[in-house]
Amino acid sequence: MTKDKIRVAIVGASGYTGSELLRLTLQHPHLELVYLTSRQWAGRAVSDEFPALRGRCQLHFSDPNAVDLSDCDAVFFATPHGVCMQQAPRLLEAGVKVVDLSADFRIKNITLWEKWYGMPHQAPEYLQEAVYGLPEMNRTAIAQARLIACPGCYPTAVQLGLWPLLHAACVDERALIADVKSGISGAGREAKVANLFAETADSFKAYAASGHRHQPEIEEHLSLALHKTVELCFVPHLLPMIRGIEATLYAPLRDAQIETTALHALYTQAYAQETFVDVMPLGSHPSTRSVRGANVLRLALHRSVNQRVVIVSAVEDNLVKGAAGQALQCLNLQFGLPEHTGLSALPLIP
Amino acid sequence: MTKDKIRVAIVGASGYTGSELLRLTLQHPHLELVYLTSRQWAGRAVSDEFPALRGRCQLHFSDPNAVDLSDCDAVFFATPHGVCMQQAPRLLEAGVKVVDLSADFRIKNITLWEKWYGMPHQAPEYLQEAVYGLPEMNRTAIAQARLIACPGCYPTAVQLGLWPLLHAACVDERALIADVKSGISGAGREAKVANLFAETADSFKAYAASGHRHQPEIEEHLSLALHKTVELCFVPHLLPMIRGIEATLYAPLRDAQIETTALHALYTQAYAQETFVDVMPLGSHPSTRSVRGANVLRLALHRSVNQRVVIVSAVEDNLVKGAAGQALQCLNLQFGLPEHTGLSALPLIP
Amino acid sequence: MTKDKIRVAIVGASGYTGSELLRLTLQHPHLELVYLTSRQWAGRAVSDEFPALRGRCQLHFSDPNAVDLSDCDAVFFATPHGVCMQQAPRLLEAGVKVVDLSADFRIKNITLWEKWYGMPHQAPEYLQEAVYGLPEMNRTAIAQARLIACPGCYPTAVQLGLWPLLHAACVDERALIADVKSGISGAGREAKVANLFAETADSFKAYAASGHRHQPEIEEHLSLALHKTVELCFVPHLLPMIRGIEATLYAPLRDAQIETTALHALYTQAYAQETFVDVMPLGSHPSTRSVRGANVLRLALHRSVNQRVVIVSAVEDNLVKGAAGQALQCLNLQFGLPEHTGLSALPLIP
Amino acid sequence: MTKDKIRVAIVGASGYTGSELLRLTLQHPHLELVYLTSRQWAGRAVSDEFPALRGRCQLHFSDPNAVDLSDCDAVFFATPHGVCMQQAPRLLEAGVKVVDLSADFRIKNITLWEKWYGMPHQAPEYLQEAVYGLPEMNRTAIAQARLIACPGCYPTAVQLGLWPLLHAACVDERALIADVKSGISGAGREAKVANLFAETADSFKAYAASGHRHQPEIEEHLSLALHKTVELCFVPHLLPMIRGIEATLYAPLRDAQIETTALHALYTQAYAQETFVDVMPLGSHPSTRSVRGANVLRLALHRSVNQRVVIVSAVEDNLVKGAAGQALQCLNLQFGLPEHTGLSALPLIP
Repeated sequence: MTKDKIRVAIVGASGYTGSELLRLTLQHPHLELVYLTSRQWAGRAVSDEFPALRGRCQLHFSDPNAVDLSDCDAVFFATPHGVCMQQAPRLLEAGVKVVDLSADFRIKNITLWEKWYGMPHQAPEYLQEAVYGLPEMNRTAIAQARLIACPGCYPTAVQLGLWPLLHAACVDERALIADVKSGISGAGREAKVANLFAETADSFKAYAASGHRHQPEIEEHLSLALHKTVELCFVPHLLPMIRGIEATLYAPLRDAQIETTALHALYTQAYAQETFVDVMPLGSHPSTRSVRGANVLRLALHRSVNQRVVIVSAVEDNLVKGAAGQALQCLNLQFGLPEHTGLSALPLIP
Repeated sequence: MTKDKIRVAIVGASGYTGSELLRLTLQHPHLELVYLTSRQWAGRAVSDEFPALRGRCQLHFSDPNAVDLSDCDAVFFATPHGVCMQQAPRLLEAGVKVVDLSADFRIKNITLWEKWYGMPHQAPEYLQEAVYGLPEMNRTAIAQARLIACPGCYPTAVQLGLWPLLHAACVDERALIADVKSGISGAGREAKVANLFAETADSFKAYAASGHRHQPEIEEHLSLALHKTVELCFVPHLLPMIRGIEATLYAPLRDAQIETTALHALYTQAYAQETFVDVMPLGSHPSTRSVRGANVLRLALHRSVNQRVVIVSAVEDNLVKGAAGQALQCLNLQFGLPEHTGLSALPLIP
Repeated sequence: MTKDKIRVAIVGASGYTGSELLRLTLQHPHLELVYLTSRQWAGRAVSDEFPALRGRCQLHFSDPNAVDLSDCDAVFFATPHGVCMQQAPRLLEAGVKVVDLSADFRIKNITLWEKWYGMPHQAPEYLQEAVYGLPEMNRTAIAQARLIACPGCYPTAVQLGLWPLLHAACVDERALIADVKSGISGAGREAKVANLFAETADSFKAYAASGHRHQPEIEEHLSLALHKTVELCFVPHLLPMIRGIEATLYAPLRDAQIETTALHALYTQAYAQETFVDVMPLGSHPSTRSVRGANVLRLALHRSVNQRVVIVSAVEDNLVKGAAGQALQCLNLQFGLPEHTGLSALPLIP
Repeated sequence: MTKDKIRVAIVGASGYTGSELLRLTLQHPHLELVYLTSRQWAGRAVSDEFPALRGRCQLHFSDPNAVDLSDCDAVFFATPHGVCMQQAPRLLEAGVKVVDLSADFRIKNITLWEKWYGMPHQAPEYLQEAVYGLPEMNRTAIAQARLIACPGCYPTAVQLGLWPLLHAACVDERALIADVKSGISGAGREAKVANLFAETADSFKAYAASGHRHQPEIEEHLSLALHKTVELCFVPHLLPMIRGIEATLYAPLRDAQIETTALHALYTQAYAQETFVDVMPLGSHPSTRSVRGANVLRLALHRSVNQRVVIVSAVEDNLVKGAAGQALQCLNLQFGLPEHTGLSALPLIP
């Protein structure tokens, strides 16, 4: 436990991930938010852009080029991909811990990264050092890491949802299917016609069904953890709601004779000590609203009528356990704080 | 083409399927709506319950026991299951055509029906006569049928979405997965806390993941059509929107070498003559709003990154192509009218 | 009644008003849509941008500079303000009727127009000729007009909602209040962060409370009709829904002794012959969904507890009776067609 | 500051007000929740009904007749009206403080209460003792009260929104208008068709426009505070969103010459010391999402174009500042805790 406040900055605070980090950081008892950078809003009061924070935050947005972030103990990057890999090396060398919520260090295989992100990687020498920020699978390494690559919403739900089955080797790891659905905040805060209310409300659709960047990331990390090639068919969809994702995962059993209670026990055991993973009793279905605003992954397990497929439904708030909450969970570990510090708020229902 | 109007009645007009039948029937050029029955609203003016119809419908709801439906040319049942099977025999004997939008005659296997619907079947002698009302797969039989068992929303999308692949025998028919999502009107118009706005808005969840009544129905009809046992893992979800369903279908290919364009051609050929099925070009994703209020099933085809799975995304308005529109399509066939009569309204976007 | 089709064009077809005109025009029995212009989509197939129209519209968008609209019988302008006033003169001189859905000719007082729209008017000589396209108040003039200035959603609801009271001189015409609320399609189809789903869903707010362009327009036209200065306090709000507006109108009675039934009779009499205005019985409250997709203004009348204020609640679909439907209603009048031609579709509920 | 925990119970914990009290109480550092009663759920685990609380609340619902609430330091009533007035007297005599979130003690005038609530009052001798729980107007009395009558959402927004103008005597207190809009959680958690998602989503309407129970309550309390008869025209509306209300208030100025900045100063001065009232700068419009989940009333002031009307737009979360948060604010005062204890969570945006 530290006695002084940890000095942090948020780079790219104008998006939804950034504003959620801001909300959580302001309520964290051991963090002092020093800088918030935003190119477009530099110089403006934070509470002018986020009236919800009127009276609660006296900061102004800074120009990213006008502040010296090496002044901080840790820096969060809530930027589009391509930014953190340029700035992280200098910060790391200055002794600043970096928690990257973008995609820059999520994939170890540089060829794969460059293929899916369409640009050369600027800091390949840090790819191996970067620790994948999924505490439930990677806690010890995170606690010792300088550079964290936080997984986003889909990879968190899919990996935590499938891992106990894969670890027990009871499903065909090359025939996995993830049908995932995200609220529209997941699409970001850019001005795009496709994300206008009148385009997306009262509607639903799949997107990127032939290939999405999270698919190779999930395959890579599950394969590394399992020491076997994992293959995943991954289809994302856009939900007419603000926050929340749901992943319905289909895994064909190697042996259809296994009892459902035994499968369920794999999950309750795997996550027995986890504060932020809730395994529901058999017969349950988690709803995204049950985690709204909270740092929780909640899941339930089912079986197909013909018994051959395990079905896992996992939900989380894409901006919390799928982004900002997970980043804080990692930072708590990095600084030796209890993992749940600042992350205990109850979900907001209804 | 008939010269006089066809006299029809709607039994159970107070639910969403019933009110949608009412909307479509009032705008159909060759139908005369004679009776609308509703136990709870008997005696009340239709336009009092549906202010949207003020000035457009002079009917009153009738008590189902107070009217003689044998007076009609055709009767629609938009009731919960268990009602039509009691009333259909007498109507059929009186020469009235019956279009059942409930589940009473959807499954031929009576044991299976009684297992999933939890009651003894009251008209088993009509189960074989009943024609499954999916015109794109069953047009000729529908045209000659007295008794139509209309499939609901999920079975329509799943069967039309999978059929070209099954028919071409290019996928494993025992390893199919249907991840389906429905707007909340699909849950009916009963007073239930679970379907209140504040319970369902801004949220999403799976339900009945261990077994849903539409799963055996789909398996039975696809198996009958294919002359082979088809097995389906089927998981429904509830979407925070009013109308529309989407089905994402996963079918493992027997031979992963087949070209995607060849798979696409299976669909464009299968549905080339269909007015109400739209096969989008490769690279597309249908949205439910693109069919809002219209009698259309719109679909697109994708391929998993590892090429081993065909992915089909199919959308329809659950109350139109998934219910009332399909029923009218069947009735048009039964009475020798052009199939699209009264079904040409464009979708309402945005 | 014309025997050949009326050739029409839509200028600015990429916005919500334009796409709604497109939907209605394609279903109108006497119109032939010849051109659809859009600067950004020139050359693209309409059905690529609007997949809802796949198989139903073979047109391509045209570059506005590449087509000769004088070729048409009538041209609709669904553009931002400032476009129609530049193009209308030439079209009118060529004998083409112009139906302007933008604001260019809505205000007769040029000083007032230039103040609220912040630009010099380009066709002041046509301001007096332009006929305000509110058929229920202006039918005869519309039938003879070359140039129609269609009022938008708020002015339609407010004027039709207040007129019977003003005409009967029973309320203080200088103390009127209009609290109006619009679905988000009313904010247009531009890429703006403020109109993203995640910014507007599950939220509500007033906007432009100190002054909105529709306020002087309403005051001017009610004053002209009444031959007295009308003053209106007007506050618009943004609703988290796609279509529909509601106006709650407050008018202080000159004599609080008047019976509510007498006030109600003013409305039933004023609108007895109107196809598109529905006066509900006392005790009713109209909902916006009761007019979704339909060309209807539906209203109900109430009285404050102290009897001193008449309250009128009026609803309409902002894209139909508040825009495209009203424009077609005007065009029907201009071409001698029955006023309801192509405008009879029932509302889409739920 | 107390050193032991304050023992509290919630009567009627199955509705939205009750579940919000539950959420806030569980996160309050000085409260120990002892009983939660619910007739329908007696005996069931709280986390079974509210999966969002899994792992965070070990309580079971109690049968209201099976527990002795006199055991508590304070009891919240989150019941329909008619319950608290039967149980409060016995609790008060036993030394338990009562915080009533229902309407039983909100109106001092028993004749008026019985007229609007349609039942005889069961505890008229407590009507005068009951303190109206609006801390910003009534702080001292609340701190000394045994029995608090908490105002609901509309009265809180309307009274705090109008009070500075009334207090300064600059508006006509008999010509006030409140056009108020509420999210659907305000309609309660009962199983009613009218509040189903498919009935209310994508729609908006006024209700109770001829008279609503909050109107006499507001008039009474403003009149008592002002020592003058206040008259209010009050029209509520139902918004297609979960949480949040907005009140647009219209007050005719006695003297239209007064500067808007002077009017604004009345608000900034009146609320300068208030933690939970935020007066925005001139030119602003508050959105309901800016207070989602937080105990804040946020307001802005505008002026009609003719300068004769002051317009105030005030927003709050109907379940927090409009119900459960306000109740806790009162309880904090009653027990000598800092008023903001347990009420500092930031709003959840987006």
